Amino acid sequence: MTIEAALRVGVIALVAVVLRWLAARAITRGVAGMRRREIGSKRVDARASAVASVLLNLTTWTVVVIAVLLALGEVDVQLAPLLAGAGVAGVAIGFGAQSLVRDVLAGIFVLIEDQYGVGDIIDAGPATGTVERVTLRSTQLRDLAGTVWHIPNGTITRVGNKSQNWARAVVEVVLSHDADVRAARAELRRVADAMAGEEPWAAAMRTGAEADEQGISALTPAGVTLRLVVDTEPKSQWQVERELRLRIKEAFDAAGIPFEVHHP
Amino acid sequence: MTIEAALRVGVIALVAVVLRWLAARAITRGVAGMRRREIGSKRVDARASAVASVLLNLTTWTVVVIAVLLALGEVDVQLAPLLAGAGVAGVAIGFGAQSLVRDVLAGIFVLIEDQYGVGDIIDAGPATGTVERVTLRSTQLRDLAGTVWHIPNGTITRVGNKSQNWARAVVEVVLSHDADVRAARAELRRVADAMAGEEPWAAAMRTGAEADEQGISALTPAGVTLRLVVDTEPKSQWQVERELRLRIKEAFDAAGIPFEVHHP
Amino acid sequence: MTIEAALRVGVIALVAVVLRWLAARAITRGVAGMRRREIGSKRVDARASAVASVLLNLTTWTVVVIAVLLALGEVDVQLAPLLAGAGVAGVAIGFGAQSLVRDVLAGIFVLIEDQYGVGDIIDAGPATGTVERVTLRSTQLRDLAGTVWHIPNGTITRVGNKSQNWARAVVEVVLSHDADVRAARAELRRVADAMAGEEPWAAAMRTGAEADEQGISALTPAGVTLRLVVDTEPKSQWQVERELRLRIKEAFDAAGIPFEVHHP
Amino acid sequence: MTIEAALRVGVIALVAVVLRWLAARAITRGVAGMRRREIGSKRVDARASAVASVLLNLTTWTVVVIAVLLALGEVDVQLAPLLAGAGVAGVAIGFGAQSLVRDVLAGIFVLIEDQYGVGDIIDAGPATGTVERVTLRSTQLRDLAGTVWHIPNGTITRVGNKSQNWARAVVEVVLSHDADVRAARAELRRVADAMAGEEPWAAAMRTGAEADEQGISALTPAGVTLRLVVDTEPKSQWQVERELRLRIKEAFDAAGIPFEVHHP
Amino acid sequence: MTIEAALRVGVIALVAVVLRWLAARAITRGVAGMRRREIGSKRVDARASAVASVLLNLTTWTVVVIAVLLALGEVDVQLAPLLAGAGVAGVAIGFGAQSLVRDVLAGIFVLIEDQYGVGDIIDAGPATGTVERVTLRSTQLRDLAGTVWHIPNGTITRVGNKSQNWARAVVEVVLSHDADVRAARAELRRVADAMAGEEPWAAAMRTGAEADEQGISALTPAGVTLRLVVDTEPKSQWQVERELRLRIKEAFDAAGIPFEVHHP
Amino acid sequence: MTIEAALRVGVIALVAVVLRWLAARAITRGVAGMRRREIGSKRVDARASAVASVLLNLTTWTVVVIAVLLALGEVDVQLAPLLAGAGVAGVAIGFGAQSLVRDVLAGIFVLIEDQYGVGDIIDAGPATGTVERVTLRSTQLRDLAGTVWHIPNGTITRVGNKSQNWARAVVEVVLSHDADVRAARAELRRVADAMAGEEPWAAAMRTGAEADEQGISALTPAGVTLRLVVDTEPKSQWQVERELRLRIKEAFDAAGIPFEVHHP
Amino acid sequence: MTIEAALRVGVIALVAVVLRWLAARAITRGVAGMRRREIGSKRVDARASAVASVLLNLTTWTVVVIAVLLALGEVDVQLAPLLAGAGVAGVAIGFGAQSLVRDVLAGIFVLIEDQYGVGDIIDAGPATGTVERVTLRSTQLRDLAGTVWHIPNGTITRVGNKSQNWARAVVEVVLSHDADVRAARAELRRVADAMAGEEPWAAAMRTGAEADEQGISALTPAGVTLRLVVDTEPKSQWQVERELRLRIKEAFDAAGIPFEVHHP
Repeated sequence: MTIEAALRVGVIALVAVVLRWLAARAITRGVAGMRRREIGSKRVDARASAVASVLLNLTTWTVVVIAVLLALGEVDVQLAPLLAGAGVAGVAIGFGAQSLVRDVLAGIFVLIEDQYGVGDIIDAGPATGTVERVTLRSTQLRDLAGTVWHIPNGTITRVGNKSQNWARAVVEVVLSHDADVRAARAELRRVADAMAGEEPWAAAMRTGAEADEQGISALTPAGVTLRLVVDTEPKSQWQVERELRLRIKEAFDAAGIPFEVHHP
Repeated sequence: MTIEAALRVGVIALVAVVLRWLAARAITRGVAGMRRREIGSKRVDARASAVASVLLNLTTWTVVVIAVLLALGEVDVQLAPLLAGAGVAGVAIGFGAQSLVRDVLAGIFVLIEDQYGVGDIIDAGPATGTVERVTLRSTQLRDLAGTVWHIPNGTITRVGNKSQNWARAVVEVVLSHDADVRAARAELRRVADAMAGEEPWAAAMRTGAEADEQGISALTPAGVTLRLVVDTEPKSQWQVERELRLRIKEAFDAAGIPFEVHHP
Repeated sequence: MTIEAALRVGVIALVAVVLRWLAARAITRGVAGMRRREIGSKRVDARASAVASVLLNLTTWTVVVIAVLLALGEVDVQLAPLLAGAGVAGVAIGFGAQSLVRDVLAGIFVLIEDQYGVGDIIDAGPATGTVERVTLRSTQLRDLAGTVWHIPNGTITRVGNKSQNWARAVVEVVLSHDADVRAARAELRRVADAMAGEEPWAAAMRTGAEADEQGISALTPAGVTLRLVVDTEPKSQWQVERELRLRIKEAFDAAGIPFEVHHP
Repeated sequence: MTIEAALRVGVIALVAVVLRWLAARAITRGVAGMRRREIGSKRVDARASAVASVLLNLTTWTVVVIAVLLALGEVDVQLAPLLAGAGVAGVAIGFGAQSLVRDVLAGIFVLIEDQYGVGDIIDAGPATGTVERVTLRSTQLRDLAGTVWHIPNGTITRVGNKSQNWARAVVEVVLSHDADVRAARAELRRVADAMAGEEPWAAAMRTGAEADEQGISALTPAGVTLRLVVDTEPKSQWQVERELRLRIKEAFDAAGIPFEVHHP
Repeated sequence: MTIEAALRVGVIALVAVVLRWLAARAITRGVAGMRRREIGSKRVDARASAVASVLLNLTTWTVVVIAVLLALGEVDVQLAPLLAGAGVAGVAIGFGAQSLVRDVLAGIFVLIEDQYGVGDIIDAGPATGTVERVTLRSTQLRDLAGTVWHIPNGTITRVGNKSQNWARAVVEVVLSHDADVRAARAELRRVADAMAGEEPWAAAMRTGAEADEQGISALTPAGVTLRLVVDTEPKSQWQVERELRLRIKEAFDAAGIPFEVHHP
Repeated sequence: MTIEAALRVGVIALVAVVLRWLAARAITRGVAGMRRREIGSKRVDARASAVASVLLNLTTWTVVVIAVLLALGEVDVQLAPLLAGAGVAGVAIGFGAQSLVRDVLAGIFVLIEDQYGVGDIIDAGPATGTVERVTLRSTQLRDLAGTVWHIPNGTITRVGNKSQNWARAVVEVVLSHDADVRAARAELRRVADAMAGEEPWAAAMRTGAEADEQGISALTPAGVTLRLVVDTEPKSQWQVERELRLRIKEAFDAAGIPFEVHHP
Repeated sequence: MTIEAALRVGVIALVAVVLRWLAARAITRGVAGMRRREIGSKRVDARASAVASVLLNLTTWTVVVIAVLLALGEVDVQLAPLLAGAGVAGVAIGFGAQSLVRDVLAGIFVLIEDQYGVGDIIDAGPATGTVERVTLRSTQLRDLAGTVWHIPNGTITRVGNKSQNWARAVVEVVLSHDADVRAARAELRRVADAMAGEEPWAAAMRTGAEADEQGISALTPAGVTLRLVVDTEPKSQWQVERELRLRIKEAFDAAGIPFEVHHP
């Protein structure tokens, strides 16, 4: 090992340290700015820290590996066999590990795009439920029946978040072809207005939103389908739907509006 | 490092700067031309900026990476280990990251081909709803029930835009085999004409378009199916369909035309 | 850079220019011949220009890239790092971009094999409708409900063109087991012959084609199915089918031939 | 370029020419022999020419490419960059073009194994119909409704040829549980024998083949299913089936054998 | 080319010839032994020849290619460009040709494992029928309706041979809930025993096998299902099943045991 | 082999031994800390040992292989053919063995994320049952019917653990449209409260959890569906559900609340 | 070939022989220990021999190939072309042969994990039946209808063994909503107890296991479903189920407990 080689190695190390320090600073500043723009939410803090940590790790490892390889290239260590061996292993493992890389990449985008967080109710494809834990590799849900689902992030090709900002209660009722459709629509409107004026339902509905009685959503041999749509606070949609169904059932029975019934 | 090598590096850097400047100018001009041809629309501006930014980034990075590699090749730094290591990593990661590349490529074509934009109502396969955000990697929709869907662009193999230029309201009704088909067709035409003469429905229908009463679209043991088609303004098709169903239901009941009914 | 190298580079450039010129001439001539053989159709012109443009681009780029690489090999620029880097990028991107290459290849064959063009009504798998735009990468359809579909060409594994040269109207009616099958078949023949003698239906049917009354296409517990087939002009098949259904319905009702009816 | 190199290049060229000539002769002879063995059929001629042309092209291109590469290796042209670039392109395109290679390979086997030809009626998976065109890359069908299907050969994982040598008409009738099964079987046999003695049906049935009345093919709560099988000339099976159904329907009605009927 | 190189090439050629001769002899002997162990069957002979021919071809080609490459390595021909070109082609084609390799590998195992042969009736997944031809690449079936299916061996992920050594007739009858189950079981046993004593049915059943009356295989709201199982000679199972159904139907009708009937 | 090379090999060996010792110590400490944090559970011990053993094996093999390759590079053994051969084998096998690597990776995450353990009742996709054995490669379940399922871990894309911490009994009953919904809801609440006060059901329910009578979960032509949800101890949910169904059936029959019944 | 090279080759051969001998001894010992631990079962012997043979073959071939490659590297044979050719072939074939490697790997785990053996009744996905043969590549089953299935091991993603250690008979009966559920449950218990006291049923049930009458497993508009579960000896579960169904049918008929019946 000549003095020149030693010098070169030193320069490489120095450049690596400086680069790493610059990257760390840029990341910290970016995250701080992100925090400042979206103030007041605990979830933003958690996301910011997670993203910063992922970026920092990635930068550090990339810089270290490149620096070590360049330095070894300067010294007289014979890297060819090592690299060839790594190549063989890389190919052999690459096929199997691709699902792991895919899972982690998907996990990073769950964070960056804020797709969902702990406590959200999501439809992840194979299962729907409340998020209990999110890691870079997988998401853990608990569904309605209490089953805990472990789902690798990469297998969630699309995710539906049922509790982001606001939600919607949608109730459809099927009337018999003999029913008076105009009377039924008036009853639907009356029921929705009554609920909007009573606690706790007023609080569960979205501020400023009005119930949307949409008319005949389907007209088939199986009956006349009416639809009622109400915007609600996130996670309140199911309670509002159930209460609406109860009130509609009783209002229609009282007003003599006939439901469509199978097997009469 | 000899003087010749330094000279060569300088030339490489100069060529890179010039190339990048030429590319940037060409892109800016192309985008300006694109803007001039499709004047007046905000969406065109947004698309033009997005496309220009993507192209500029791509060009810059390609030029920089090639210049750096050529320059390093001129200096005496030993690149072999670095490149071999990158090769191993490239293969190992390539398998996992392919979905990311695919997502971004698909996102670029969403922009270039103007497949959809924020506010459009699209059928993206796993979910149908109003577009809330489009990035190069993914699209965010909110469906009828208020669920927010995050869908990577690469998983949308085909997309149906329900609000591009104009739309169509299609209503099918199933009549009993006893019904007078000619009378029913006349009623359908009468209903459509009446709606076309009343506000707000006249505005919702497409200017100059006439309702298309198409006759018997199916003749099966389950009944006689008639179809009515009306061209509408984008996003008005569902309201028009619901109003048509209500009016047809009442017109047929008044005229004594029997609907096909399951479970009599 | 010695004089010999400069000479070699010059020869390479010359050969490249000559090759490109020869290819361009061959393509132009081939396309002209293609035009002469299929005279009179606008679509042939459009296809010929598109194919010629694709071939010319492909040839030009191949010749240029090969010439540049050979020339650089003659000069003393160190290409190894550049090529190795390109290799890494090629593999890493190749996985993700394969769908793009596949799309363009499929698009080229849509042109060469004349599978469909703007205005055709096609079944592209995910959607069926009228073609609004065909590019090398994707096809844009508008379906019956007015939805615009953007479908990458590579995802269309098979395509059904419903408006190529001629089409066929196929009507099946299900009779009750009590029906007189011979009488029903006679009525079907009578209806088809009557339509073939009336305008506008005579024009919609294919010149010289006779309606094909095929007899019992199915004999199941659900009834006796008769089938009537009529060759039509392209895109007229649906109107002919609907008119046939209306006339058959009225003819059978008049002749007292009982349809099979669910839920009597 | 020394004289020895020129000499070597000459030898390479000579060997290539000789090899190509030998291969062409072998192919021509093989095809001639194939023609002699299967005399008299136009289809065999077409297939033989197509196979010969494919083989000749393949041989010529392989010999030319190998000879050129070997010759360039003898001259002092630096091939390394060219080959490396080709490698990068090969990998990048290989992923996308694999479906093209697969299509052509499948097309070659359609020819060699004589799976189907123009005029045959085949079930190609996505569509069933009459073959209108077969190329190495794709097959074009027209189905019952007149739709033209373009199907890449590689996507046809299995193909069913309904018109190869001979075909079979299969008719199943479902009797009520009250029916006299022995009487019904006798009627079936009588109907089939009567048809075999009348023109044009005698000609449509396969020479020497007798109708096969197979007895109860299923005994379920939905009724007693009888099956009748008749070997026919290719493409006549559907007409024979329809005529059989008509005669059986009338014979059973006359003999008072009750069909199973849904919704009595 | 020095004398030493010529010598080396000679040695390589000699070793190749000897190796090939040894392999051929080993294969011939192994096949002869295989024939001796499984005497008397024509099918064994055919399989043995086919396997021997495949092995011999494989060995010969492997030896020749290795010898030629080693010999060329000794002479001064520059193989690098040729091999690099082959590598590019290998990768580019490898993706498309993998289905061909997979087909041939699957075909080899059809032979070695004696999965099926010409005349067998197999369930190949996409189609079920009688095998008409088996090649290394594909299998040709003719199904019940006379359709000829061409199926690449590699797409047959599992194959069911319905005519290997022996077969089984399985008949299930569904009785009404009012039926006397013990009486019905006695009738089933009586019918099976009667058939076992009559020709040609005695010959169709497997020697020494007794009918297995299994009792209630299902007890659902849709009725009481009884099952009768009889071992038969291969390919006789369907005739035995049909005869059993006829006899059971008549025996139960005579004994007044009520079948379950839909739509009474 | 010079003295310098011997020296270098010695240094490499020394470094390898030290690195392995450091890694082993770090792993042991990490696992001990993991144990301390989650005290008292046998399962934690088992998991900790398993994870430690996997990590130790992995570290040891990586260090040994790298050291051996570096050492061989220092001696004069020609590694090129060995490495090239390994490369060929690696690629050829890599395609086939990828499922094995994927299985083991998935198995490691089953351990690390504590997805399930022996005795848990899980839904693994192809089968649901009690876990009998978990290895790095596969999981063995026994389902309700006593069938033992062997499932490679990599094929379990998502897993649902039905016995993690707590579970939930969910009972839905469908009432006739004539039923008094308020009375039915009161009965449901009464039944749940009664069970919560009786042993052994009080113990089976989750401490502190109250039954959640949720009202009308669906209102369709098929009836009015009520839902009752009770949190239970893990694995008690099915017994609680069955007991709830029995009590509800008897309570509703006693109170005269009509169930919806098919086929009246 | 110098003396030193000859010496090196000798050392390589010696090391290879010693390594192979050591590996063979280790394998023999390990298998012997495996045999000792699981004494008395013929199946263990067969498995042990199979595993030992596989391991020995693998070790021998690995050692031989590595030794030959190292030795050739020492002699002056030019391996580069050979290895490059092998690389091309390896890639080209690797894509096609991956299913073979996958099959063999899966077969090895069938042996090691003792998933099933000859005589077991397994659910292999595409088919369920009795195992007739297991090889490293494929499994041969005969199903209930006598069809022999040949299934490559790699396509069996999960396997269910119905005859491992013990099995379970599960009988579900659907009662009418009018039935007395408590009386029905008492009858079920009485039937199960009676069978447990009678031969041959006492022997078919698992020693010490008691019948588990589980109550209402489902309460739907289609009826009240009761479930009875009995642990049995392996392969006896179906006979026990059929006998249970017969006895339950007769006991319920005698006690006047009404079954749910479709189509009354």
